[in-house]
Amino acid sequence: MKSYNNIQKLFLISTICTLFFCTLTACVSRNESQGTKVTPKSNSSNSSTTTDTVSSNLYDSIIHNGRYQVSAQRGVSVSNTNNMSDLMGFESGLLNYERKIFSPEKYIFQEGQNISKELAISWLGRKSKDNPQGLNPVDNGSKDPNKRNPLVLQQILEHDFVTKKGNGYNLEGIVIGLSINSTDYYQKEQYGPTFKTDIKNSAGDKYAKESANIILTRLRKIQSLKNVPIYLYVYREGEEDSLVGGNFIFSSKADQGDKFTNWTNINEKNVVYPVTNNDLPVSQKDSDDFNNFKNNIQNFFPNIAGVIAQAHYESGLIKGMVIKITTQFYSITEISSFTQYCANQANQNLPKGIPLEIDIQSANGTMLSFISRNPTDTGFYTHVFSSY
Amino acid sequence: MKSYNNIQKLFLISTICTLFFCTLTACVSRNESQGTKVTPKSNSSNSSTTTDTVSSNLYDSIIHNGRYQVSAQRGVSVSNTNNMSDLMGFESGLLNYERKIFSPEKYIFQEGQNISKELAISWLGRKSKDNPQGLNPVDNGSKDPNKRNPLVLQQILEHDFVTKKGNGYNLEGIVIGLSINSTDYYQKEQYGPTFKTDIKNSAGDKYAKESANIILTRLRKIQSLKNVPIYLYVYREGEEDSLVGGNFIFSSKADQGDKFTNWTNINEKNVVYPVTNNDLPVSQKDSDDFNNFKNNIQNFFPNIAGVIAQAHYESGLIKGMVIKITTQFYSITEISSFTQYCANQANQNLPKGIPLEIDIQSANGTMLSFISRNPTDTGFYTHVFSSY
Repeated sequence: MKSYNNIQKLFLISTICTLFFCTLTACVSRNESQGTKVTPKSNSSNSSTTTDTVSSNLYDSIIHNGRYQVSAQRGVSVSNTNNMSDLMGFESGLLNYERKIFSPEKYIFQEGQNISKELAISWLGRKSKDNPQGLNPVDNGSKDPNKRNPLVLQQILEHDFVTKKGNGYNLEGIVIGLSINSTDYYQKEQYGPTFKTDIKNSAGDKYAKESANIILTRLRKIQSLKNVPIYLYVYREGEEDSLVGGNFIFSSKADQGDKFTNWTNINEKNVVYPVTNNDLPVSQKDSDDFNNFKNNIQNFFPNIAGVIAQAHYESGLIKGMVIKITTQFYSITEISSFTQYCANQANQNLPKGIPLEIDIQSANGTMLSFISRNPTDTGFYTHVFSSY
Repeated sequence: MKSYNNIQKLFLISTICTLFFCTLTACVSRNESQGTKVTPKSNSSNSSTTTDTVSSNLYDSIIHNGRYQVSAQRGVSVSNTNNMSDLMGFESGLLNYERKIFSPEKYIFQEGQNISKELAISWLGRKSKDNPQGLNPVDNGSKDPNKRNPLVLQQILEHDFVTKKGNGYNLEGIVIGLSINSTDYYQKEQYGPTFKTDIKNSAGDKYAKESANIILTRLRKIQSLKNVPIYLYVYREGEEDSLVGGNFIFSSKADQGDKFTNWTNINEKNVVYPVTNNDLPVSQKDSDDFNNFKNNIQNFFPNIAGVIAQAHYESGLIKGMVIKITTQFYSITEISSFTQYCANQANQNLPKGIPLEIDIQSANGTMLSFISRNPTDTGFYTHVFSSY
């Protein structure tokens, strides 16, 4: 389906590929006035501090003895992660929703401390005699794409939100991100060819909801989580060969108790421009605007530049754009001039009032400059990377 | 002499490595009121425009028919370029001096149009029967490091500065950058081991001045350059294994005529922090400040971060700093928290009132976020690269 060239693809992947190993879980009850005190797990309780955010859009996070309080399941990886964009899109998308629930001005971010690495590995595994806690379907023995049980759950992520209380922190709520596959890729034999089992949306949705409730029940058994609001966001991963990640599909919350009862559908979509294979774009206008931008800059140098965009839509409206430009430069003055020209073309052609990022890199993958505009900015910030 | 590990080294090189192929030359007479009209070399003379700079610190540059007017010697490479930092440091350093002569608010930048690719290649070659225009010493046949004639001239660069005049542009002055080797690296046989011939500063300086005057004479023979001010900046390249480039050593200008008569020494130096091997730092205070910064951030995660700085000095005073941080991240929240923490530590520990850039990247070389402060800013700009 995709016809982007390898350089473009490598570019995106290398830019995204951040060694994410997915992460893990927890759940339940929003009770604003009654959080649980989180005792920092290090030796000295009075040396705990936070990062002191420089931007109002970012969370403070907890530092203890000069060291970041990492996630309890740091480094957990699901070996068959399909698409590097999913790793990044899942987490940054989740953060966007979290900012609407837990204002960065009031809450401090804490990496998930309740779902340990061992739990995460166990829960993301198949259910079996050796792994009774496994949340993925049992292996039914079949290797036929249409008869085997696909792996449905792909990633699990826990984020905690706290407020300062005395020398410690008060847990105010936790958010669980759960990611499910749209397609399960597998090998019939080690090093053999890859086959795939498609997972119908309806089947994936149902499985996610059931799994979410099991997770919630398990989390409620943790003493400190008995009365904490637990939010859940479910994400469906993109195709392996896609240049964007998947998207969130629904959410729920449980102020208390061990069942998610109300589900809120999420209408969002990530797409790639230019549109290929005569596919219909989500928005013809956005597609035309992007093509104007692309056409104006790709012939700036005698050698053609690769220009590709990831666009994020919510309820059919564009809400963000990341553009990657790859070209061959022969001097700093070329980079600098090109960067300015791109900013002007972006200003003339691309949608306003949304976060916009344009990354410019050389053919060998080195990032050379970038352009950025926040939704409320009128002008662009440009930066050419330097060296002495 | 250097003890940085390979990751740090690769990081710097990959960040710097911009496919620069060096460039070429020209010279002479500053005559403010009498520039030469530059006719754009493309088909339609009225479709010429400029990049329309978004920053007052950057030059407008010339675009013709939607295409950048590239350097006449674009893509010229000297095969034995020693150090990737030299390629970038030479050109960006030159731009810093140019901004002081030709204000970006008044002048438009034009890539050098007078020294063609063929001229550049010829001039940077050895003088020989086949290449009588060669400016590097004749091959005396010796392969002994102390008896052979080293290649002295390494790079040549021409930048033109113009103002708009009617449908065209008026050439107001040109700047020639000339880079000489401190060490000439060579092989006695193809694919054989590398040997080196050191070039004494006094010998290199003398050779550069003689070559500059030959170049000036040749440029003055070009009709359009007869009465244009020509500036010259000479740069001495760093050692092959250094993590910074070399530095500019002297300059001159010729408002007219074919001889540079007055030479102005330039006292600048690029150094790397942390200082290794008990070397004395240029500034003990700057070194201590950097070490405080480094110590405070390198244990932020359980895995240690690599932290290294390039610092630029003019007349003994620090004038700029680029810091590269490499560490392994497991999530976007880790990147975001680390970025904020670094900005705070930079604010507390690093010199103020100078341009400061901090690039943060993963162990595999992907740039993940960066922090920047201009000399006049009080706060830091931070950006975490995103993906959908």
